[in-house]
Amino acid sequence: MFITFEGIDGSGKSTQIGLLAAHLRESGRQVAATFEPGDGSLGRELRPILLDLKNSGLCDRAELFLYLADRAQHVSEVIAPALRGGAVVLCDRFVDSTLAYQGYGRGLDLAMLRELNALAVAGTAPDLTLVLDLAPQVGLARAKARNLGAGAQDSEGRFEALALDFHNRVRGGYLELAKGEPERIRVVDAGRRPGEIFEDVRCLVDEKLGGAR
Amino acid sequence: MFITFEGIDGSGKSTQIGLLAAHLRESGRQVAATFEPGDGSLGRELRPILLDLKNSGLCDRAELFLYLADRAQHVSEVIAPALRGGAVVLCDRFVDSTLAYQGYGRGLDLAMLRELNALAVAGTAPDLTLVLDLAPQVGLARAKARNLGAGAQDSEGRFEALALDFHNRVRGGYLELAKGEPERIRVVDAGRRPGEIFEDVRCLVDEKLGGAR
Repeated sequence: MFITFEGIDGSGKSTQIGLLAAHLRESGRQVAATFEPGDGSLGRELRPILLDLKNSGLCDRAELFLYLADRAQHVSEVIAPALRGGAVVLCDRFVDSTLAYQGYGRGLDLAMLRELNALAVAGTAPDLTLVLDLAPQVGLARAKARNLGAGAQDSEGRFEALALDFHNRVRGGYLELAKGEPERIRVVDAGRRPGEIFEDVRCLVDEKLGGAR
Repeated sequence: MFITFEGIDGSGKSTQIGLLAAHLRESGRQVAATFEPGDGSLGRELRPILLDLKNSGLCDRAELFLYLADRAQHVSEVIAPALRGGAVVLCDRFVDSTLAYQGYGRGLDLAMLRELNALAVAGTAPDLTLVLDLAPQVGLARAKARNLGAGAQDSEGRFEALALDFHNRVRGGYLELAKGEPERIRVVDAGRRPGEIFEDVRCLVDEKLGGAR
């Protein structure tokens, strides 16, 4: 079972992944929680390149290929082995981030992005994707407060510096993707308290896991 | 005018580029000499990742996407601006390296690699490509001697560690590519002294430049 979490920065993905991992472990399941970009051996080298403000001169295609390199290695080294080992894999961002950010956000061709994603993941597709939906104004304010709290290490600075307009397109993209694949992609209202959001997350996941038994 | 040099390690590409750059400058032309992987702002961060022996665990697709990221940024930041500025651009390795190494060498699908190359270069194609053809045994011995001479900095170590069989496939791939595009790709016998090789290189380039006037 491979579950991915999607949504703009500040939508609460990592909080929900933490709550879900604890819930699944309590129910006796083996869980692997991971993230993109940057988990795994290659990702640790690429994440600073991708998220560094000084790389804002990266052209769209170079940025896209870096995300795909990170994803190909992440699948091969982390996700696929964990799935083979029987774990429920929870991943913070995956193929739909590429469609939402590079496609809807930056305007790259969606059909081409789907082909490139397919090449990168080599058959490892999410069974369930939860989009944590939130107004960008709220998400960006949360992400900014979190980063300031973390001190000078403004790791997501490059994306936060992008215009609100861009994030509105990304949010709209996620909602479009969910309309196109309603069985796999479920939208959760992330404008509530974490515990309330988690009630929905837990129900959707338990429903899917029940069906998978 | 965009001229690329191809061939296995140790085939003498950088020597010939140096000789050709001097020749073209003497004849009054503006020249930009560059290389892949690793020239340009992104390349400087990616080259150590790509050439480091400890990254031999990179999966084929991740490696491919890294080369494409490097190429997309290199074209956008270095090659296309130099061409627009009127320079003759000489590049050590370009799209044909991907076809020869990842395609013929590692067995990835050539049609797919051509599509990915097209996406990476966004219309910037070589006018002339010189394949410096050499038996891998000779090239690898030269590359090894050069790297030992340079001390501990065995920058091309990862590829040299690959089997001779692999390099034979790469060499054969270059010769196939030349057969398929005889107008653009010219094969030069690189098993001679640098001055002799350069006589052929100079003739081929002057012929092309003459035709381009």
